[in-house]
Amino acid sequence: MAKTILILNGPNLNMLGARQPEIYGSETLDDVAGLCAETAAIFGQETELRQSNHEGELVDWIHEARDSFAAIIINPGAYSHTSVAILDALNMFEGPVAEVHLSNIHAREEFRHNSYVSGRADAVIVGCGPAGYGFAVEQVCACLSDAVT
Amino acid sequence: MAKTILILNGPNLNMLGARQPEIYGSETLDDVAGLCAETAAIFGQETELRQSNHEGELVDWIHEARDSFAAIIINPGAYSHTSVAILDALNMFEGPVAEVHLSNIHAREEFRHNSYVSGRADAVIVGCGPAGYGFAVEQVCACLSDAVT
Amino acid sequence: MAKTILILNGPNLNMLGARQPEIYGSETLDDVAGLCAETAAIFGQETELRQSNHEGELVDWIHEARDSFAAIIINPGAYSHTSVAILDALNMFEGPVAEVHLSNIHAREEFRHNSYVSGRADAVIVGCGPAGYGFAVEQVCACLSDAVT
Amino acid sequence: MAKTILILNGPNLNMLGARQPEIYGSETLDDVAGLCAETAAIFGQETELRQSNHEGELVDWIHEARDSFAAIIINPGAYSHTSVAILDALNMFEGPVAEVHLSNIHAREEFRHNSYVSGRADAVIVGCGPAGYGFAVEQVCACLSDAVT
Amino acid sequence: MAKTILILNGPNLNMLGARQPEIYGSETLDDVAGLCAETAAIFGQETELRQSNHEGELVDWIHEARDSFAAIIINPGAYSHTSVAILDALNMFEGPVAEVHLSNIHAREEFRHNSYVSGRADAVIVGCGPAGYGFAVEQVCACLSDAVT
Amino acid sequence: MAKTILILNGPNLNMLGARQPEIYGSETLDDVAGLCAETAAIFGQETELRQSNHEGELVDWIHEARDSFAAIIINPGAYSHTSVAILDALNMFEGPVAEVHLSNIHAREEFRHNSYVSGRADAVIVGCGPAGYGFAVEQVCACLSDAVT
Amino acid sequence: MAKTILILNGPNLNMLGARQPEIYGSETLDDVAGLCAETAAIFGQETELRQSNHEGELVDWIHEARDSFAAIIINPGAYSHTSVAILDALNMFEGPVAEVHLSNIHAREEFRHNSYVSGRADAVIVGCGPAGYGFAVEQVCACLSDAVT
Amino acid sequence: MAKTILILNGPNLNMLGARQPEIYGSETLDDVAGLCAETAAIFGQETELRQSNHEGELVDWIHEARDSFAAIIINPGAYSHTSVAILDALNMFEGPVAEVHLSNIHAREEFRHNSYVSGRADAVIVGCGPAGYGFAVEQVCACLSDAVT
Amino acid sequence: MAKTILILNGPNLNMLGARQPEIYGSETLDDVAGLCAETAAIFGQETELRQSNHEGELVDWIHEARDSFAAIIINPGAYSHTSVAILDALNMFEGPVAEVHLSNIHAREEFRHNSYVSGRADAVIVGCGPAGYGFAVEQVCACLSDAVT
Amino acid sequence: MAKTILILNGPNLNMLGARQPEIYGSETLDDVAGLCAETAAIFGQETELRQSNHEGELVDWIHEARDSFAAIIINPGAYSHTSVAILDALNMFEGPVAEVHLSNIHAREEFRHNSYVSGRADAVIVGCGPAGYGFAVEQVCACLSDAVT
Amino acid sequence: MAKTILILNGPNLNMLGARQPEIYGSETLDDVAGLCAETAAIFGQETELRQSNHEGELVDWIHEARDSFAAIIINPGAYSHTSVAILDALNMFEGPVAEVHLSNIHAREEFRHNSYVSGRADAVIVGCGPAGYGFAVEQVCACLSDAVT
Amino acid sequence: MAKTILILNGPNLNMLGARQPEIYGSETLDDVAGLCAETAAIFGQETELRQSNHEGELVDWIHEARDSFAAIIINPGAYSHTSVAILDALNMFEGPVAEVHLSNIHAREEFRHNSYVSGRADAVIVGCGPAGYGFAVEQVCACLSDAVT
Repeated sequence: MAKTILILNGPNLNMLGARQPEIYGSETLDDVAGLCAETAAIFGQETELRQSNHEGELVDWIHEARDSFAAIIINPGAYSHTSVAILDALNMFEGPVAEVHLSNIHAREEFRHNSYVSGRADAVIVGCGPAGYGFAVEQVCACLSDAVT
Repeated sequence: MAKTILILNGPNLNMLGARQPEIYGSETLDDVAGLCAETAAIFGQETELRQSNHEGELVDWIHEARDSFAAIIINPGAYSHTSVAILDALNMFEGPVAEVHLSNIHAREEFRHNSYVSGRADAVIVGCGPAGYGFAVEQVCACLSDAVT
Repeated sequence: MAKTILILNGPNLNMLGARQPEIYGSETLDDVAGLCAETAAIFGQETELRQSNHEGELVDWIHEARDSFAAIIINPGAYSHTSVAILDALNMFEGPVAEVHLSNIHAREEFRHNSYVSGRADAVIVGCGPAGYGFAVEQVCACLSDAVT
Repeated sequence: MAKTILILNGPNLNMLGARQPEIYGSETLDDVAGLCAETAAIFGQETELRQSNHEGELVDWIHEARDSFAAIIINPGAYSHTSVAILDALNMFEGPVAEVHLSNIHAREEFRHNSYVSGRADAVIVGCGPAGYGFAVEQVCACLSDAVT
Repeated sequence: MAKTILILNGPNLNMLGARQPEIYGSETLDDVAGLCAETAAIFGQETELRQSNHEGELVDWIHEARDSFAAIIINPGAYSHTSVAILDALNMFEGPVAEVHLSNIHAREEFRHNSYVSGRADAVIVGCGPAGYGFAVEQVCACLSDAVT
Repeated sequence: MAKTILILNGPNLNMLGARQPEIYGSETLDDVAGLCAETAAIFGQETELRQSNHEGELVDWIHEARDSFAAIIINPGAYSHTSVAILDALNMFEGPVAEVHLSNIHAREEFRHNSYVSGRADAVIVGCGPAGYGFAVEQVCACLSDAVT
Repeated sequence: MAKTILILNGPNLNMLGARQPEIYGSETLDDVAGLCAETAAIFGQETELRQSNHEGELVDWIHEARDSFAAIIINPGAYSHTSVAILDALNMFEGPVAEVHLSNIHAREEFRHNSYVSGRADAVIVGCGPAGYGFAVEQVCACLSDAVT
Repeated sequence: MAKTILILNGPNLNMLGARQPEIYGSETLDDVAGLCAETAAIFGQETELRQSNHEGELVDWIHEARDSFAAIIINPGAYSHTSVAILDALNMFEGPVAEVHLSNIHAREEFRHNSYVSGRADAVIVGCGPAGYGFAVEQVCACLSDAVT
Repeated sequence: MAKTILILNGPNLNMLGARQPEIYGSETLDDVAGLCAETAAIFGQETELRQSNHEGELVDWIHEARDSFAAIIINPGAYSHTSVAILDALNMFEGPVAEVHLSNIHAREEFRHNSYVSGRADAVIVGCGPAGYGFAVEQVCACLSDAVT
Repeated sequence: MAKTILILNGPNLNMLGARQPEIYGSETLDDVAGLCAETAAIFGQETELRQSNHEGELVDWIHEARDSFAAIIINPGAYSHTSVAILDALNMFEGPVAEVHLSNIHAREEFRHNSYVSGRADAVIVGCGPAGYGFAVEQVCACLSDAVT
Repeated sequence: MAKTILILNGPNLNMLGARQPEIYGSETLDDVAGLCAETAAIFGQETELRQSNHEGELVDWIHEARDSFAAIIINPGAYSHTSVAILDALNMFEGPVAEVHLSNIHAREEFRHNSYVSGRADAVIVGCGPAGYGFAVEQVCACLSDAVT
Repeated sequence: MAKTILILNGPNLNMLGARQPEIYGSETLDDVAGLCAETAAIFGQETELRQSNHEGELVDWIHEARDSFAAIIINPGAYSHTSVAILDALNMFEGPVAEVHLSNIHAREEFRHNSYVSGRADAVIVGCGPAGYGFAVEQVCACLSDAVT
């Protein structure tokens, strides 16, 4: 029986579309939610997208996912580089985890090259813009159907 | 008019399928070539897959791509972490570049966390297994059609 | 006149008991609260246990402790390694402070070896499981009765 | 037409005046608010002072500033040293930004010498006590009137 | 059948009580031995306390413990920071190991923050003064009775 | 009785106004001297501005200030990052010291992020352009009048 | 049934004997091949010695060894310090691996102290000159006969 | 009797002239060969220019130079920063060695600041464009005629 | 119209010829001045050579060059490694800058490998002895005539 | 005339055979002594094996070796990584020195990768188990007979 | 009333005179003892010289000095760089402490540049050979007579 | 025939006696000059003491010493930690060099632990106050008379 995929977004991602559209494009987080839902539907799955600027709220949601979600896709934003708390929460989650970054963090400042979350993620997709979320959904759907079989 | 996408593979990737199949799966580089070709065909593009254990040969092929290929997808394998020569060659290439790693290099030894190629790549996809090549093809096809429009 | 000891718990500790019971045991944070209360009672003290996944809420509670609590026992969880804000808040608190970690953080990843809180704590107890809270209660009770005499 | 200057204060600054008055003086954050308002009034500007111990709330307020405030003066407190999220939020803000620290952070512990926010700030004023806020207001008012002309 | 707990003390701890009593208190190592014996007695165990300024003698005693002692409590003093030999000896011991430090080593010089022994210890108790030995005895007694059950 | 405030300027600051006016503005060091004098006059103080490209001459002047000046405002320019000699001279001076930098050194090359002088300065003001000297004068005047009272 | 031991030699080792004979002696790689063959013969094994200045060719040969050789003895020369590709190839080989260096690399420049290959090798023999190859042959022959038994 | 000077060029230098001519100029490696030959002719010497993208081939050629060439001028390109093998080969060569870089590597990324080859080279010439080869030829010719005298 | 090239020499270079002639040769700074003048004359330029052991005097002379000299050739001697002030002065100079070192600084102590000046220089020539000045003159003359055209 | 070879063993090596026999095998230090004696006998030499857990005693024995032993084979155990005193003692010994480690220290924790003794040893043999002592005896016997000739 | 000055010598110093006399001279530790005694006699003091290769014995002797000696002169030899235990013992001693090294440790290997003992010593004298002990005796005698007055 | 010993003093040492007399004592540099002269007279030598706050002037004086002085005693003050120029000048001087520091630089800030001059000095004497100059004079006089014999 299909369980929903949780799509988590960290700080500043609520500004997507409004923020430097010449760089990040004009797609909003709602557009991302749509893309994720459509992609998941192909695999018979559902998605739910949330965003928070609060590290603690992201931790809360990951806890909630243990019982209520089949997989997590997370763009931790700036918390990638500073949050051990989110890493610990993800370490308690047993389903597949994919990490997404809109831009190529490896081509930016030194302090963006390390992501604590990458140590736990099964897959990491960076620099693909919103399409990266779609790839992540495909990837976790594939994992989920492997697990089922 | 469609130009081909070059899929480059670095050292040890010729062993794919034969090497620890319980971890890396039983898919071979031929299977990867097939997946890439099929994915590209959806976008009206073609692909050509090559593999070499020689850093210099990979550099040669990237030079060749300047005139003959529209985009490069590269899994530099171990050369990711040690080759400035491949980075320099890619810096001369003007089309889109996507980097792929089968496993999550960020969850492995410290010396695998840095990839010189990531400083040049437009997108980096790690830990998705062979499917990562498919995502990379989709991504560069999208870039190519953006550029056309 | 006895004032209460505040027992603070950082991110993910709300999952105690539910999380990998084969490692962390089946005791919950309620059990810890009970142990603390019983231990404190021997010394004629009381305890109050709180938990939050929010760094800011932990800071708020430490401020509150300046007027309302006699001592602080804190298991900062992942915030041990990343929060200067909690350190600064504790620096403003004048009573005894004991730091507790359930597992031995020194035997885990490099980034868990440093705790900002340890620079302020009077005592640090790691790797004793829930019993570590009991030792911490004993220790701060001893400090408090020393101070009284 | 004058727009308000937002004066943001990070964790533990709500304790100003109550905390070690022999060091930090007896002035409170309300006094700082008064000083800022008076200084801004000289330049025909207004100010609004807020404080939060929550990193996420500070991010929220910086987002809000994009539409509603002309400039930001920020004393990020301990988040200076640990928050990439606040830096990212400020990077989206287009008006002048001044950073203030009451004490001289360069003469304190090593981990206080680096401030992520300083990489974005236009001006940084440290060690002037509450008067530093006044200088920051003067500085951003000058920037704003330059921009107008 | 009860086996004895070995309480090892490293360099300079023979001076306890004589050394800066205003800081370390007036309790001597004999007092510590008494506290340990009394605490163990509650759990039906016995203790034996030894002290040496010689790294090699501490290694000898840990070897001896393999056959003759049920658990080790060790305050390695300055050898915590420099002795791989003691770590290796403890790695050969199969019973529970607790590390004790009288003062909070994390609040002292940088070179005291790392303890090789902590990588092997099951529990580490710092900054509790002589009482820390008592907590350590309780902790290893609990481990021993768990193992029995 | 008022004593003069010494305004010291390190290497290359004699070029102010002539050097990249589109960045540094067209104000010269004479303009700065005027601003300082005017600001000090409000507080009933006087100022004297000097500039040297010679580390040794700056040291000489700081020695002279011990007897002849009430406070020092110093923009050490490039010597900020390399001169322990200036730091040592300032350590012998007993009055207030404020450090000024025209541009935001924290947003420039890594080797400009550390200033030896900041370890001694009471206040540090960066990125405010020439106005920063004015703020520094205000700050040291406030210190001087506090000291008097 | 005996399978051959592959003796691989990295860059510059083709110059053995011709290169600084006062230091490296006058023995050539052919002499080494002879020594290896004779030593192996005692154990009823055979050897095949190859040398290449090309990292890629060494990788190719290690791949070939998976099916055709029982063990690998490798003197990676300068590639010890820079080649992750050779390490990865060796990680795929299942038989015993011994690493040999003619001179004592630990007594030379800092950058020669780390060898990626040592992380995979079962045995490492340095500073024994050509005789080190003989010891390596003995060692892998012993491993092979253990495995057989 | 004059022996030829070997001019070696590492990876990507075959692209000279074709690659970003606005930066590197329109001169090709053939032009460089011409310049070298002409300069050497003034000193009665000859030159031979080779280029390879293969580290191993460069090593081979340096070996060959021991018997057949009087001096080596090398632009190791990206291998400057990663090849110990080329350094070792040059260490076996007894004639003069000059290192050339077209651009100023010290003003580029951090990882380009170190060149292993520089530890062996007699002279290093960077940032002079193709003319740098000419200076290098002059320099080694001077060394050769000094040695003769 | 030809403007003069300024040849600056840092600390200890006044000793050239007198200092370890077996290493540095017997040529003096006067000989260098002669070589520079002769080389420049070929290109229709003039040179003026100065030397100082004083960092501040070198800064003064670079300032003077802004109006009076067409290019700067500088051998900063030991100040290469320690002087940000000279770097800053050169950053204000708009003509071509070439850096010269008599010996190969990359083959000496670690602290000589970094030169602040190299971050600004257009060309860097090391290890060519006095001839390096000649190459530098040729190089800046070529730049000057390029600029003219 | 034959002089004896001293075989020194550092801390914890007295436990050989008793300690984790599934890893280290069941051979004891007595077996090692036998192997060494037998191997040396082939070369007409004798050996004497000693073990101590005391750094100082190992230093004493190395001093004694200056007059009484022809060569030293040393397995410094954990003192490899921490003892400059043993290095200094070996620096005073003029005969051949071989260092032996039973396991491959390069494949273990980071702090085991450096051995002070390796800076002085002529040969280093790691990961060969007890057989490594035999190789070391062969190696020093070869050195001794070279020296005689 | 005069109390004796304790002259402690660490590992390998028993070899003085016998060890590389062309470097360290032919004076023995007995000669040093004589020099110390004679120098002290001028000041009406006595000395006692001891040497040990055992860290623990040096610690024992420093403890003994608390009651029985007026000052300590220590040449810790190799333990300077590795022994926190000796530092801790010296921290308990209240009289003057002078550290002596025969050779200039700052001109030797990097790992000899730091001495833990220097953090506690009042004076440090290096590179004066045996005469350094004489200077140290003069220095502590001066301290002792200052203390008396 | 006796030549004079040059006693050089770096920045801020002109303040000796006037600066924090409770720490540095009330002796001035004139007193130091007297002590040096008296000590040298015992050995039949003369001294000349100079002080400068200018790095360049110190370099000038060291050059002068090559012809006019027999030995150099230098207290480089803050230039110890930052001046390669003074090191280079001393490297050209052939007589004995002793370095003196009044206070124990090893017990102060981290950046004072390294002295470039120590790499060249024959002897280094720290923490002996003015008496350290006397010891240095004795030491260089002994060297000079050794050299004579």
